[in-house]
Amino acid sequence: MIPGPTLRPAAQALYDRVADLPIVSPHGHCDPRWWSGDEAFPDPAALLIQPDHYVFRMLYSQGVSLADLGIGPGGQGRDPRDVFRLFAQHWDAFLGTPSRQWLDFTLSRTLGVETPLSPDTADIIYDEIAAKLATQAYRPRALFDRFGIEALATTDTATDPLVHHAAIAASGWTGRIVPTFRPDDVLNPARPDHLSSLAKLAAMTGCDLGRYADFLDALRQRRTAFRNAGATATDHDVPNLATCWLDRDRIEALHSRAVTGTLCADEARAYYGHMLVEMAQMAAEDGMVMQIHAGSRRNTNAPLFASHGPDMGADIPGAINWVDGMAALLNRVGNDPRLRVILFTLDESAYSRELAPMAGHWPCLRIGPPWWFHDSLNGMRRYFDRVVETAGYLNLAGFNDDTRAFLSIPARHDTWRRAVALHLADQVERGVLVRADAERLAPMLARGLALDTYRLRES
Amino acid sequence: MIPGPTLRPAAQALYDRVADLPIVSPHGHCDPRWWSGDEAFPDPAALLIQPDHYVFRMLYSQGVSLADLGIGPGGQGRDPRDVFRLFAQHWDAFLGTPSRQWLDFTLSRTLGVETPLSPDTADIIYDEIAAKLATQAYRPRALFDRFGIEALATTDTATDPLVHHAAIAASGWTGRIVPTFRPDDVLNPARPDHLSSLAKLAAMTGCDLGRYADFLDALRQRRTAFRNAGATATDHDVPNLATCWLDRDRIEALHSRAVTGTLCADEARAYYGHMLVEMAQMAAEDGMVMQIHAGSRRNTNAPLFASHGPDMGADIPGAINWVDGMAALLNRVGNDPRLRVILFTLDESAYSRELAPMAGHWPCLRIGPPWWFHDSLNGMRRYFDRVVETAGYLNLAGFNDDTRAFLSIPARHDTWRRAVALHLADQVERGVLVRADAERLAPMLARGLALDTYRLRES
Amino acid sequence: MIPGPTLRPAAQALYDRVADLPIVSPHGHCDPRWWSGDEAFPDPAALLIQPDHYVFRMLYSQGVSLADLGIGPGGQGRDPRDVFRLFAQHWDAFLGTPSRQWLDFTLSRTLGVETPLSPDTADIIYDEIAAKLATQAYRPRALFDRFGIEALATTDTATDPLVHHAAIAASGWTGRIVPTFRPDDVLNPARPDHLSSLAKLAAMTGCDLGRYADFLDALRQRRTAFRNAGATATDHDVPNLATCWLDRDRIEALHSRAVTGTLCADEARAYYGHMLVEMAQMAAEDGMVMQIHAGSRRNTNAPLFASHGPDMGADIPGAINWVDGMAALLNRVGNDPRLRVILFTLDESAYSRELAPMAGHWPCLRIGPPWWFHDSLNGMRRYFDRVVETAGYLNLAGFNDDTRAFLSIPARHDTWRRAVALHLADQVERGVLVRADAERLAPMLARGLALDTYRLRES
Repeated sequence: MIPGPTLRPAAQALYDRVADLPIVSPHGHCDPRWWSGDEAFPDPAALLIQPDHYVFRMLYSQGVSLADLGIGPGGQGRDPRDVFRLFAQHWDAFLGTPSRQWLDFTLSRTLGVETPLSPDTADIIYDEIAAKLATQAYRPRALFDRFGIEALATTDTATDPLVHHAAIAASGWTGRIVPTFRPDDVLNPARPDHLSSLAKLAAMTGCDLGRYADFLDALRQRRTAFRNAGATATDHDVPNLATCWLDRDRIEALHSRAVTGTLCADEARAYYGHMLVEMAQMAAEDGMVMQIHAGSRRNTNAPLFASHGPDMGADIPGAINWVDGMAALLNRVGNDPRLRVILFTLDESAYSRELAPMAGHWPCLRIGPPWWFHDSLNGMRRYFDRVVETAGYLNLAGFNDDTRAFLSIPARHDTWRRAVALHLADQVERGVLVRADAERLAPMLARGLALDTYRLRES
Repeated sequence: MIPGPTLRPAAQALYDRVADLPIVSPHGHCDPRWWSGDEAFPDPAALLIQPDHYVFRMLYSQGVSLADLGIGPGGQGRDPRDVFRLFAQHWDAFLGTPSRQWLDFTLSRTLGVETPLSPDTADIIYDEIAAKLATQAYRPRALFDRFGIEALATTDTATDPLVHHAAIAASGWTGRIVPTFRPDDVLNPARPDHLSSLAKLAAMTGCDLGRYADFLDALRQRRTAFRNAGATATDHDVPNLATCWLDRDRIEALHSRAVTGTLCADEARAYYGHMLVEMAQMAAEDGMVMQIHAGSRRNTNAPLFASHGPDMGADIPGAINWVDGMAALLNRVGNDPRLRVILFTLDESAYSRELAPMAGHWPCLRIGPPWWFHDSLNGMRRYFDRVVETAGYLNLAGFNDDTRAFLSIPARHDTWRRAVALHLADQVERGVLVRADAERLAPMLARGLALDTYRLRES
Repeated sequence: MIPGPTLRPAAQALYDRVADLPIVSPHGHCDPRWWSGDEAFPDPAALLIQPDHYVFRMLYSQGVSLADLGIGPGGQGRDPRDVFRLFAQHWDAFLGTPSRQWLDFTLSRTLGVETPLSPDTADIIYDEIAAKLATQAYRPRALFDRFGIEALATTDTATDPLVHHAAIAASGWTGRIVPTFRPDDVLNPARPDHLSSLAKLAAMTGCDLGRYADFLDALRQRRTAFRNAGATATDHDVPNLATCWLDRDRIEALHSRAVTGTLCADEARAYYGHMLVEMAQMAAEDGMVMQIHAGSRRNTNAPLFASHGPDMGADIPGAINWVDGMAALLNRVGNDPRLRVILFTLDESAYSRELAPMAGHWPCLRIGPPWWFHDSLNGMRRYFDRVVETAGYLNLAGFNDDTRAFLSIPARHDTWRRAVALHLADQVERGVLVRADAERLAPMLARGLALDTYRLRES
C-alpha cells in the first residue's frame, strides 16, 4: 500500500514543493501534558485505537462491543494486545476510509512498520510498535520535532489553568505549543458542566459572576491569560447556530438565572447566542481569531451516552442555516476590520450556497478546511470544487488537522498537501490557473494561509 | 450505441470479474403473478412504456398527454402501436437519462433488436418485439432464468394473501421469488386505504384490531406468514420521517381512534412514527431486515392525482432530517445486535452529512444504494464519493433495482456493476485501494453485500 | 493566461462547432440606455469595477473599503485610475474565480490588451482601455454587433416606460434588445418601493388600483405594453418561495390593505404568493415565459444596506423548498400546455432532489442554467451532473448570462460553451451519448434551447 494518494506528474511536481514544509496545526485536541511530561506513550491500543473515535466508531458499527475494545464500563483490564487483535480482525471495515490511510501512513512512515496489517500480523506488529514506543525516539517531544511541527494549538476550557503550557515554556524545549480558548462550558447553559465551570471561573478570577459586567470581565481575564500563554484563537462548538443580540436588561435578566441553572431551553439558546456575539466583540478588541464549529448534533445515541458519556462516535451532523445563524453576530461586528472569524461546516451543501458567498463578502470571514467526516481526499476535492470559485483562495483558512491522534498529524497534513496538489494541477490543466500561480498557491495552502489566518506570524 | 457505459482498461478488468455474476434483486416491485402464471407479456407498449413511470413522466413533461399513451381516463382502447410510435417520436427527450440506457440495453441485449430506435423505425421494432414476446423464450420464467436471477423480492401489502408466491413454490419451478412485508397501509392512517386494509387484516387474522395488543399480534402473524413464504425483509415508505415512542396509554388511545379513522394529521403522524418503532422491535425479534425509503412527497400534482390516481410520475423528493427522524427508533432499539435497518434517501445532501456518519456508528444501519432518480451512473458516483470515506464498504447494502420494469433488471444491475468497476478503478489509481482489495470488493458490491445485508444466505 | 478553460481534443471539436454561434442573452441586467444613446462608456473603473458586485464584493472581503473604490458615501470624486490601481493590487484575490476568467477574457479578447494585469501594469492597462473606450469601435452598438448578439433581454420594472427600447426600435439600428417584465415592485408588499411603484402604475394605466380587478387589469395592460416592445418573458425575484392561492374575498381584503401599506409580514408573504399564481395564469393566457429566481436573501449586511443601499454584494442564498413553494402555482396552472416557467436555484442541493424530478414531470417547467455564484465552470459541471439524468436535455432552458457587466457577455457565453463541450465529450467517452447526438446537442445547448425556451423564434 502506498501511504497516501498516488499523484500524476503535474500534481507530483506541485506536491514535491510542499511535501516537506513545516506543519502548522492551528486547531486540534492533543493533550499538552504529553509534552510537559514527555513520557513514553503507552501500548499500541492506547495510542492508536482507544482514544480515536474515528476508529472505534467504525468497529462499533460492525458489531464490536466497546467493552471488548477496553473502552467504558466492562472494558477495564482488557489486554491491549487483545484489543489490537480485534481491531486487526476488522481491518477490512476501514477499506476506503481516511482512517485506513492515516493508519497505513502512521504504521509505515511514522512507526516504520513494514509488515502489512492483517489479522495474521496483528501480534508481530503490536510487538514492533510496543518496542519502539519504549525508545527515546518515540517520546512526544522527539516525535514533535521529527514531524517538523512549526506550531501546534491545543484546545482548552476557559478554566484550564494552562499549567502544562507553562511547564513546556519553562522547560527550555523549543516546540511551539499554544492553547486555544474554548469557553463553551462557561457560556452555554445547555452544557452539563455549566454550573461547575462557572464555579471554577469565579474561584480562578475572583469575580462576582452573578453580575453580568463582572462575568464579562472574568472572560476578558481568561482571554488575556490565554494570550499570555501564546494563544491566538478561540473556539466555539455550536450545535444549533443561532446568534442573537439581546438588550442589556434582557441579557442581565437571563444571566442572573443562567448562573443558577434555571433557564429553559429556549432561554439557554438565546443566552448562548448572545454570548457568541460578546465573544466576537472581545475578539475584535483583543485580536484573537474566533473559530466556529457548528452543526454537530452531539451524543445522538442516548443509551450509549448514558452508559459511556460523550465522544463515543455518536455525534452526527445536521443541516445548518449559516446566514440566519450568523446574522446577529455579523451585523453587529462583522464589518469591523479587526475581527477574524473562521467558519467550519459539516453540512457540505452550505459550501456553495452560503459559506463561499458569505466569505466572498464579509471582511471578517474565512472558510475553515473540511472537518471531521470530510477531512478526506474526496471531502477536500468537494471543498475546493465548491468554495474557490466564489470565495477565491485568500478567504480560506488553510488546513487544520483537528485531531487528538497525535501520530496521525503527518498523515493528515500529507493528505491535505496531496489534495492541494491534485486540485491545483487540475486548475492548471483546465486553464483556470497558470502554473506560476499554482506554484505560489501550493505553499500558501499547505502552510502560509494557516499561519496568516491564525495570526501565528504576528505573535 | 454501446449498451452501457464505456470502461477504461482498469475498470473493464474489474467489470469482467462481476459482469456475469448471478443477479440478486432484494427489493423491487415486480408482480409475482407473472411467474405463477408464466403467461406471455402483452404488447411492447404495455411491457415497456405504460407501466414505467420513469418513461411516461418524461413524455408528459414534453407535453404528451397520458390519454395518447393509453394511460388513465380517455386512454382506453389506444392502439399500442400508436403508443409506441409516440414514444419513439420523443426518443430525444431521453438523451442522457438512465431510462434511455436501460431501454437501449433492453432492446439490444435482452430483446435482440439490432435496429436503432427512432421515429422511423418504431414500427419495425414494435413488430420485432411483439413477435418475440409471443415465443416461449420470452415468457417470465424463461427470462428470469436467462437473466441469471438468484433471488428476487417482490413488495406486498400486509394483507396480501401471497397466493402467487405459494403457486410459484408449488409449481416445481426453481426460481427464488420471495415477498417483502410492506405494512404501510395498515400502519399509516394518512393512507387512503388505511381503514379498508385494517378490515382485511382483521378478517385475515381473526384478531380484534380495536385492541392495541391484538393489533400487534395480527402484525406478528402476518410477519410470520411472510417469513414462511421466504420473506427476509420489510419495507416502509415514509414521506415525512419522524419516528417517536409514545407511552402505552397514549398509543392505545391513538390506536382506538386510528381504527375509526378519526385521528387528525398530527396524531396520524405520531401514530405512524410510533408504529415504525414497533416494527423495528419486531424486526429485532424475528430477524426481518427493515427497509426505510424516506422523503418522497407523493402525488404532488393534485389535478393529475384526482384524475389518474397515484404513481403518475409526480412523486418528488424533499429534504430530510435523518438524525432527528430516526432518533426515537434508534435510541430504543438501534443498539440491539439483532436489528438491521437499511436507509434509502432521495436527498443526496444527507449522504455525507447524516447517513454515512450514522451508518459508521450504529451497528444496525446500512445505507441503501442510490434510489429512483439517482439510480444512474452519476447518482452512483456521487453515492460512492460521499458515503465510502465515512461508512466504509461493509456498512453499504449492495444494490437493488427497485423496479417494476422486469425487463430492465439486467440493464440496471449492469449499470451498477459498471459504476462499481469505475469507482474501484478510481480508488486503485488514486492509491486509496490496492488492486487485490478492489478485486475482493467488486463481487461483494455486485452480489455478496446484497445477499448478506438481506440475510438471503441464512434462510 | 489562456482566456478560458483548456479543452482536450474531443471537447475542442464540439466547442469548435458552437464557439462562433450568435449569442442569445434572454435574461440580464444591461441598461437599454446604452444602446439608445450609444455614447462611449466612461473610464475603465466605471466600466469594469464599480458596477460589478462580483468584483467589488471580493475586494470588500479582502478589507478594501468601498469608499476607496469610489462606491457609496465617501466615494465621490475618487480618481478612477486610483480605483483601478487598488483593484490591480488585489488581483490575486480573484485567482480561481470566474470573475478573473471573465476579466482575463474581456481584457485580452474584447479589449485587446496583451499586457497581463498586475499591480505594476495597472496604469498602462488603464490608459490602453481608456483610449479604446473613446473610439467608435467600443461604443455600445458597435460592441453589440461585434459580439454577435442575436437577442438581448433587459430587466425592467412594471412601470418602466420603456422609452429606451422605443428609441432603439426607432433608431434604425437592427440590434434586437427586448425588455423583460419584472413586476415585483408592484406585487411584493415587502419591497420598500411598493407604494411608490403602485402610484406610478396608477398614473401610467389610469386604473383604480384600490379595486383588485382593476389592479389585475393594470398588470395586463403593462404586460401588453411589454409584449408590444418585444418582451417574451417576465421575471420574479422571490426571496422566500411560497406560492398560494387565496379565495376571492381573502385576496380582495388583503389587496385593499396592500395598497395602503398595512399588511403584516405574513400577510404580505401570502399576498405575494398569490400574485405569483395570478402572474402564472396571465402567462398561460398571453404566452409570456415566466422566470422565477428564488432563494436569494437580499441585503444581509444590515449596516452596509443602511449606508449604501441594495446590491452591495451581501445577497446570500438560502436553502429552498421548491416542491412546497411551487405547489399552489403548479396545481392551479402547471398542467396548462400554454404555460412555461423557468426555475433558477442558488441551492444546488435542490437540483437532483427537486428541480430535475419536477422538470421531468411538469409540462410547464424548464430548469434555468447555473446562476450567479454558480455561473462558473464547476457550477456548470455540477448542474449537468445533477439535472440531465432525471430531466434530460429538453427540459433545460439553455444559457443566460444574467449580467449587468456588458463587456463580460462574450466571456460568460464562452465559458458555458466550453462547459457544454466538456460535458458532452464526457458523455460520449462514457458511452452515455453517441457522438452524433452530442453534435446535435451542442448547438442546442449553446443557442437553440434559449431561443426555444424564451419563445424568441416565435415573436
